[in-house]
Amino acid sequence: MRLVPLSQVGAGIWRLPFVSVTPDGEGADHPAPTLAGPRTDRDRPRLVASVWRALVGRPLRFREAEQEQITPVEGLSALSLDALTSVAYGPEAILIVLATAGMGALNKVLPITIAIVVLLVLLVLSYMQVIDAYPGGGGSYAVSKANLGGGASQLAAASLIVDYTLTVAVSIAAGVGALTSAYPALHSATVPICLGILAVVTVLNIRGLGEGARAFLLPTFLFIVGLLAVIAVGLFHPLAEHAPQPGAVVVSTGVGTVGILLVLKAFAAGCSALTGVEAIANGVPLFKEPRVTRAKRTELLLGGTLGVMLLGLAVLAVRFHVKPRTGQTVLSQIMGAAVGRHWAYYVVSLSITAVLALAANTSFGGLPVLASLLAADDRLPHLFALRGDRLVFSKGIWTLAAMAAALLIAVRGNTNSLIPLFAIGVFIGFTLAQAGLVVHWWRTRPARWWGRALLNAIGALATGVSSIVFLVAKFVEGAWVVVVAIPVFIGLFHVVARYYRQVAGELALGALPAIPSSKPTFVIIPVVNVSRLTAQAVSKALSLGHEVVAVTVVFDNPGDAADDGGRAIEREWERWHPSVPLHLLRSEYASIVKPVTDFVDQVRNERQDHQIVVLIPVVVPRKLRYRVLHNQIDVALSSALRARTDLIVARVPMSLEELASS
Amino acid sequence: MRLVPLSQVGAGIWRLPFVSVTPDGEGADHPAPTLAGPRTDRDRPRLVASVWRALVGRPLRFREAEQEQITPVEGLSALSLDALTSVAYGPEAILIVLATAGMGALNKVLPITIAIVVLLVLLVLSYMQVIDAYPGGGGSYAVSKANLGGGASQLAAASLIVDYTLTVAVSIAAGVGALTSAYPALHSATVPICLGILAVVTVLNIRGLGEGARAFLLPTFLFIVGLLAVIAVGLFHPLAEHAPQPGAVVVSTGVGTVGILLVLKAFAAGCSALTGVEAIANGVPLFKEPRVTRAKRTELLLGGTLGVMLLGLAVLAVRFHVKPRTGQTVLSQIMGAAVGRHWAYYVVSLSITAVLALAANTSFGGLPVLASLLAADDRLPHLFALRGDRLVFSKGIWTLAAMAAALLIAVRGNTNSLIPLFAIGVFIGFTLAQAGLVVHWWRTRPARWWGRALLNAIGALATGVSSIVFLVAKFVEGAWVVVVAIPVFIGLFHVVARYYRQVAGELALGALPAIPSSKPTFVIIPVVNVSRLTAQAVSKALSLGHEVVAVTVVFDNPGDAADDGGRAIEREWERWHPSVPLHLLRSEYASIVKPVTDFVDQVRNERQDHQIVVLIPVVVPRKLRYRVLHNQIDVALSSALRARTDLIVARVPMSLEELASS
Repeated sequence: MRLVPLSQVGAGIWRLPFVSVTPDGEGADHPAPTLAGPRTDRDRPRLVASVWRALVGRPLRFREAEQEQITPVEGLSALSLDALTSVAYGPEAILIVLATAGMGALNKVLPITIAIVVLLVLLVLSYMQVIDAYPGGGGSYAVSKANLGGGASQLAAASLIVDYTLTVAVSIAAGVGALTSAYPALHSATVPICLGILAVVTVLNIRGLGEGARAFLLPTFLFIVGLLAVIAVGLFHPLAEHAPQPGAVVVSTGVGTVGILLVLKAFAAGCSALTGVEAIANGVPLFKEPRVTRAKRTELLLGGTLGVMLLGLAVLAVRFHVKPRTGQTVLSQIMGAAVGRHWAYYVVSLSITAVLALAANTSFGGLPVLASLLAADDRLPHLFALRGDRLVFSKGIWTLAAMAAALLIAVRGNTNSLIPLFAIGVFIGFTLAQAGLVVHWWRTRPARWWGRALLNAIGALATGVSSIVFLVAKFVEGAWVVVVAIPVFIGLFHVVARYYRQVAGELALGALPAIPSSKPTFVIIPVVNVSRLTAQAVSKALSLGHEVVAVTVVFDNPGDAADDGGRAIEREWERWHPSVPLHLLRSEYASIVKPVTDFVDQVRNERQDHQIVVLIPVVVPRKLRYRVLHNQIDVALSSALRARTDLIVARVPMSLEELASS
Repeated sequence: MRLVPLSQVGAGIWRLPFVSVTPDGEGADHPAPTLAGPRTDRDRPRLVASVWRALVGRPLRFREAEQEQITPVEGLSALSLDALTSVAYGPEAILIVLATAGMGALNKVLPITIAIVVLLVLLVLSYMQVIDAYPGGGGSYAVSKANLGGGASQLAAASLIVDYTLTVAVSIAAGVGALTSAYPALHSATVPICLGILAVVTVLNIRGLGEGARAFLLPTFLFIVGLLAVIAVGLFHPLAEHAPQPGAVVVSTGVGTVGILLVLKAFAAGCSALTGVEAIANGVPLFKEPRVTRAKRTELLLGGTLGVMLLGLAVLAVRFHVKPRTGQTVLSQIMGAAVGRHWAYYVVSLSITAVLALAANTSFGGLPVLASLLAADDRLPHLFALRGDRLVFSKGIWTLAAMAAALLIAVRGNTNSLIPLFAIGVFIGFTLAQAGLVVHWWRTRPARWWGRALLNAIGALATGVSSIVFLVAKFVEGAWVVVVAIPVFIGLFHVVARYYRQVAGELALGALPAIPSSKPTFVIIPVVNVSRLTAQAVSKALSLGHEVVAVTVVFDNPGDAADDGGRAIEREWERWHPSVPLHLLRSEYASIVKPVTDFVDQVRNERQDHQIVVLIPVVVPRKLRYRVLHNQIDVALSSALRARTDLIVARVPMSLEELASS
């Protein structure tokens, strides 16, 4: 799904057409040019293109890109999975921190979860106000750009890029964690499974998810209902232990005191459960009218469900004395203790894997659109604003997939290695969006604006303080990576913007350039013999130029008895007598490239006022495999001349069929 | 060194200039074009080119390719190493066959060696006649082509290709065998060492060996004198055993009878020692005058040395009861038993490794020249007749290196796995060359021609019978590979020849084509905005064409609020008002390639009598890394249009520096 509607995208990218530059730009709906003669083996590489086309579907017309119209319940599956699935790693993140202070400290999970749920309530209320203020979809980049200026918006953008990438990696790693908890035999294949799921999600997004969003409903429903049921069963459980849990307990030896830093660390880790709360506010335009009401209702629904799940899981974790274990997620342990490792456990486990993969998908809706907006603002390469055949921003999708894959490989698919990096980016975004809203209320001053501003201010303060807590508490464990990455991205934005400003000046964009004028044209054709190929090339040259000269290289090779100093071709040229002179270029070396470029330079110098054209005749054989039987002189010549900006260099491919009949 | 002098090469390749098509065609002596503006990062890839250039040396002038003038002693090192070094694997090959009949059979090595030396005498006498008859250098390809016709010459050529490839592989494997016998710790690295030596030999040959041949003298001298000394010491040895030989004995259990088939097999295996006897006759033109006398003297010298070595080693093998062992060559055992594993042993072992590497080198002198002759006869791709910067036939060198590397990897550097394949190709060549000579004597009838013809006939008969013996005796062990490979090469010659005949007809080579004539030219320029880039492109188009039209793609995207249906660029074009119209191409899809190719097709259809040109403007940024910041639309467009034979497609690169100042 797209977090920003199509109508918003592209504003301001006036110098950029939205084009497909994918190599599969021609496909099922795009018949190959038919004038180039009959199809030959040269089309063989299209097999790969066809398979790819079948995978991603035919090119779409713009009007086929549907404007999704969703209801609150659909909104949960389309926009809230990132947030809801946080329960798969949030509680575990808290327990892992607490376990470092010994098993007795694990009880503290309950008060810490309550604090997180309080923050959740604040965030939900605050974001309902964002929906009111920005019904057009208010990502933290857009809100902070409008209210806080360029610097804040770039910080927001960099944070979002980090956040989107981490969401993909964390969700997939956690999903695979749920899978390998249920099926421990798969544990050793964690990284390949992660990358496999990433590949599927990537291809689905390149395809475009338009028609697919409703398919998310079933796993989402299974996940929410199943997990709530598991929690309910767990709460009324008679506490007869089920089968002992597999997996070694993590850090069971430490017996420390539960200091304030430890509590803050656990809180910071647990706040990873709040990521994704902002997604609904970004996606308001996707809802059916009345959009704002429906979107706010979805936000409430999300907050309620997530809060109940978090609290329920915290209570159960204490009740079942759950400890962090390797090869066994905390959620899996709670479920196993509540309902036993029977069919219900496996159904919910698989639904968790599925919804986590779909949660990763949320980022694929977000980052490419953000990148396209940044490209439109000249802050990222314009490539990111180009749409693929399926009208998605394919470069952004590939980039996100590559970054997430690198992260997953780096941490070997271990969710808990990523948690310290996570949430910082999100919370910076929370803070900026809400701070922006305070400015917004201050500027627009609607009725009761001070109440709204106060709520957002409290939200901004809470998330801002939390961000600092994360940074301090988790700096050594990995948060430093984020501290490095965000300025790097901001620096990139600046470098790119400076370059585009410079180029725009040099190309005189926006100003009118000089009126074009023509010059006399001088055409040079390198030839090797007198043949139909040469004749056709000379004809084409005569059509282009005011003056045409053919050149051929003659080797000054005293050791070669067959060397006639070029007399043979000279004689034949005379016999043929076209209207074009032939120059012999003598060379003491075995290269023909050098004599030709020397001659071109000489002509270039003598005729400063001419347009110089080099036409390179190329035989196109019937089948690709015959290429090796033809001299590749044309390749060497074109590669030697292709970077020359003072010439026009054109390869002139001529097919053997056509030459035979010419 | 080259087996065929430069003066012979290239005769008849009238349609082929000898050119360098290597990507490093421009080098130290070839300054890059300087008119293209100042050097930029785009030149970075030249670093690799520079390293390569340092490795292979600057391009050579034709007159710098020296005509080597060698004496008989130098001839031994330049042309006879392939033959002389056969002692490193020939005796061992015999013993390995005999060992299958039990240790008692090993004594038979002496009579078998005597039979081989008799064959050697016959061959030497026969080849001295070849030198008389073909003082211009008589390879079996040339001799059989002149006397026996096309079919025999192709058989000779295919056999030679197989033989040259096997010579490289066997020589390197045997050389590494000598090295790992002396230093057993290296045994596990056999394949990498083989490939390393192959790489060095290959690069040296790409560099050209002109100045290097005399450097071969020292190792050759060390090898001949050292080995003869070892044999002499061994013969007068008091027979007090030195240290026991390392390595497990191969096939020590079998106790069979020594049947006729076994003897034939052992003889066939031992004949691998005779390979290379023909090389001197191929290289006659390299000798100082009087060439024929000197070459014949060298042939005699070779025969005498090789015969003495073979007989001496056979006697010592019996005397020291040498058995084939793993990780220890027979030659190493004999040397170890004769002089002990002291300094003399190591010096001779290392010189054996060195001369075997140089023996591999002989094939690099032979196959590329043979391939160039075949290319000149239209029997291999013409590429093989192209000289590199260093005036060597580089394609043939690379091909030989690739085939030898594949063989070495396939047999894991084990000489004895290659022996059953070896010698068949050589002996087919022996047979054809001598049979050709019989015809030659019959035709020319000099004084006492019948004696000469008789000698060659006996030689042809002996080698012909031997070839059949090899084939039968070693078919299952690997000779079948050769039986498959030779017809495959002959088939390749036929396919290539048929293709070139067809192309020559289609191109009307040798006939005069129609007189070229010009057509009116219609130029299409895809543009995206009004800028200096566009202005420059339009100027160039006006210089080329009678009619010019600019096109721009406008997306029919109802979801995009910024979409103005192209009004902005239309207005700006009107304000600019160049003499060229702008066509808006409306598209419902996101690709710009398709609308442009559709437009081109339409113009092509409407103006059958026009020459259609598509000029694609390309910005060349200051540094390569900035490319990603520019749209790659030009790449997509050129790749969609490049195979079109009904258009001229030219990318028009323009550098930002020049545009800024235009």
